[in-house]
Amino acid sequence: MELLLQVLLTMTVIYIMARIGSTVFGRVGLPGLIGEILVGIVIANITIGDSSFMEDILGIWFTTETRSETYTVIYTLAELGVIFLLFSVGLETKVKDLLGSGKAAFLTALLGVILPFVAGLALIMAVGGHDMNSAMFMGAAMVATSVGITARIIKDMRLMEVKESRIIIAAAVIDDVLGMIVLAIVQGMSSSGGNLDIADLALIIIKAVAFVLLAIAAAKYVVPKIYDFFDDRNARTRAAGKVPYTYNKLILAIIVCLGMAFLAEYIGLAAIIGAFLAGMMFADYAWEWELEHKVEAITSFMITFFFVNVGLMVDLSALTEVSVIILTVIVILLAMATKYIGCGLGARLGDKTIDRSSFNIIGVGMMPRGEVGIIIASIGLNAGVMSGDLYSVVVMMSVATTIIAPPILSILFKKKYQDTYRIVAEDEI
Amino acid sequence: MELLLQVLLTMTVIYIMARIGSTVFGRVGLPGLIGEILVGIVIANITIGDSSFMEDILGIWFTTETRSETYTVIYTLAELGVIFLLFSVGLETKVKDLLGSGKAAFLTALLGVILPFVAGLALIMAVGGHDMNSAMFMGAAMVATSVGITARIIKDMRLMEVKESRIIIAAAVIDDVLGMIVLAIVQGMSSSGGNLDIADLALIIIKAVAFVLLAIAAAKYVVPKIYDFFDDRNARTRAAGKVPYTYNKLILAIIVCLGMAFLAEYIGLAAIIGAFLAGMMFADYAWEWELEHKVEAITSFMITFFFVNVGLMVDLSALTEVSVIILTVIVILLAMATKYIGCGLGARLGDKTIDRSSFNIIGVGMMPRGEVGIIIASIGLNAGVMSGDLYSVVVMMSVATTIIAPPILSILFKKKYQDTYRIVAEDEI
Repeated sequence: MELLLQVLLTMTVIYIMARIGSTVFGRVGLPGLIGEILVGIVIANITIGDSSFMEDILGIWFTTETRSETYTVIYTLAELGVIFLLFSVGLETKVKDLLGSGKAAFLTALLGVILPFVAGLALIMAVGGHDMNSAMFMGAAMVATSVGITARIIKDMRLMEVKESRIIIAAAVIDDVLGMIVLAIVQGMSSSGGNLDIADLALIIIKAVAFVLLAIAAAKYVVPKIYDFFDDRNARTRAAGKVPYTYNKLILAIIVCLGMAFLAEYIGLAAIIGAFLAGMMFADYAWEWELEHKVEAITSFMITFFFVNVGLMVDLSALTEVSVIILTVIVILLAMATKYIGCGLGARLGDKTIDRSSFNIIGVGMMPRGEVGIIIASIGLNAGVMSGDLYSVVVMMSVATTIIAPPILSILFKKKYQDTYRIVAEDEI
Repeated sequence: MELLLQVLLTMTVIYIMARIGSTVFGRVGLPGLIGEILVGIVIANITIGDSSFMEDILGIWFTTETRSETYTVIYTLAELGVIFLLFSVGLETKVKDLLGSGKAAFLTALLGVILPFVAGLALIMAVGGHDMNSAMFMGAAMVATSVGITARIIKDMRLMEVKESRIIIAAAVIDDVLGMIVLAIVQGMSSSGGNLDIADLALIIIKAVAFVLLAIAAAKYVVPKIYDFFDDRNARTRAAGKVPYTYNKLILAIIVCLGMAFLAEYIGLAAIIGAFLAGMMFADYAWEWELEHKVEAITSFMITFFFVNVGLMVDLSALTEVSVIILTVIVILLAMATKYIGCGLGARLGDKTIDRSSFNIIGVGMMPRGEVGIIIASIGLNAGVMSGDLYSVVVMMSVATTIIAPPILSILFKKKYQDTYRIVAEDEI
């Protein structure tokens, strides 16, 4: 089938199925995105007669080496969707808010990185049959929090402003930076046969910290100047009797979003970190520039493909060996427990006002690994360091934490904020 | 370079260059989209030292058989962009307006199809060296009007409501349907060796007409019912003390847009016809559902790639033979003259109030062939019916009409409506 025709069919079918999935889950009080992920799993695993629904109807197939043109498009829309999601989360995160939840967020991230890494590493070494590098990759894959999942729940519930949400979002950013540093170290050590130059290590850390600090500096000092420039121009345009052209700011914002996402990815961080920081740069003007609704429209056009794609990557047939199943269950439990204890404890150490219910929300909110764990595992797989079995385990762990955490989180949020906030029924048709 | 990293770089660079191009053209009073097309031509033809900017920096390359993954993404975004553009044009076209400009629009389209087809066919037969099928494809490629280009000018100038704009938009839709019928006939005849079953011909015409009529019927009878359904639900949600979830309507609209685009493409019409008709279905509720701004944001995210891509497809080195250059010039002049006379005359025959200035606006507004001529030529090329030379000629004709018509059209519009409408400076940063 010709590319455009196939892409239109695939997008339409995925949209309709995802919409049904999210509506069904929304009806029973669960986050719609779980429905979308499950739709992805269904799409990847159903057959009609002798033919695969995903391959023959949707034109989607992929291996670690290659993929169909249609999947290239869907995958890119998915990635752009999560980039714009983080951008819109950034738009609602002002610099002073991020720095305000400083100590608690930092300790949440730090303990939430150390515990899962050590646990993952120790488990694989204890199980045996895998080398040190393989174990280190498992540790790294257990580190990364996918803020995309939690961010959507927080946004859907209109709870951006509460203390726990701010700590989670800030900690997830710091966590991503720390997680990428861990990945860079692991990658460096495995490729250099165990030896990582201390100068290289320092460089990785400096790059990551410098990127975040430069973005914050730009938000505080450069963006206000750009805003003043536009303000002056618009005033002059109005004085000349013309209507100012409002779309330019959206294009400017998109350019900065994509450019920062590229830069983050280029220096070895995740693209979504760059997008989040780009959003933060515009946070003070998002309302005035009418950016939020426009970016949200662009996000909602693409984000469905992200969640469906998380499901697409699950190959149920890979999980048939009993030993793999047992290992998967242990890894899932460990992944949840270490994030829960590490992040909850970190938050309480940093902020004495964190009570039991806040501990629970933060611990659970940091659990989803989403695509980040899968990306790390596929880097290990492609480098020949990680076995196919361990890769499947990591995928299942990422999907399981992503599926299990959101409903618990939304129950915890509802319990704590049912009186204060009006909970919005989400994702219903 | 890894796909996501390359796509982010390519998108950012194209956005920045296109923005510069459109700003420069906007400053001298020309439509910004010409700047974007020229940026595409520049991107395709500049080299840095020994390396091609497009291939080595942007990761874009394509032949008639294959293309890079990055180009697959950019191409799809471009096509989705023009689909959403036509969808948003449809959102502003109410059914009663389309039918209201009936006779003039129909005659504009009809004469605007017959004259270019006959001229293209006769020219290639007169030149010699090509067979009948090749000449028919040239005729078909000269028929299709790309309403995308003209629509953007009309939208940018806020002139959706004037008589000429309505005739142009309505005629372009009818023109597309007639053009696709011509293409289907030409394709059918060339593949059956000159014999086209009268039943097949009838089927093609019936499919096209039925599609348009069904869409109009859906707009009049089905969509109001859907609207009432949502209205009831929202009333009940509000009564239950909850805030209605507004995004669903955008997703619904996107599903209908993509689904109709698929259907149109599937039955052999262009995808943009389906998108336009889908927009028309929602035209009565676009304002109330806040669809316009959201769809415009999605469009503005992708439409830049469409215009840059028109430029990318120009290979200047293909035009070195003198005979090809002369043929190109004649085809360009003929393409402009036949649309100008055919459409202007058709409009005047259908509506006696069409004066000289309206004749000019309609004649020029129907000139741009945009991507439609190129698509038809590439169908001919891929089927082995059209030669590479003729393909290059059609591409140059499409680009030339697309570049030449917009500035003339905006001058004509300004001249006629400078007192009535406030002309908005478009595409300035």
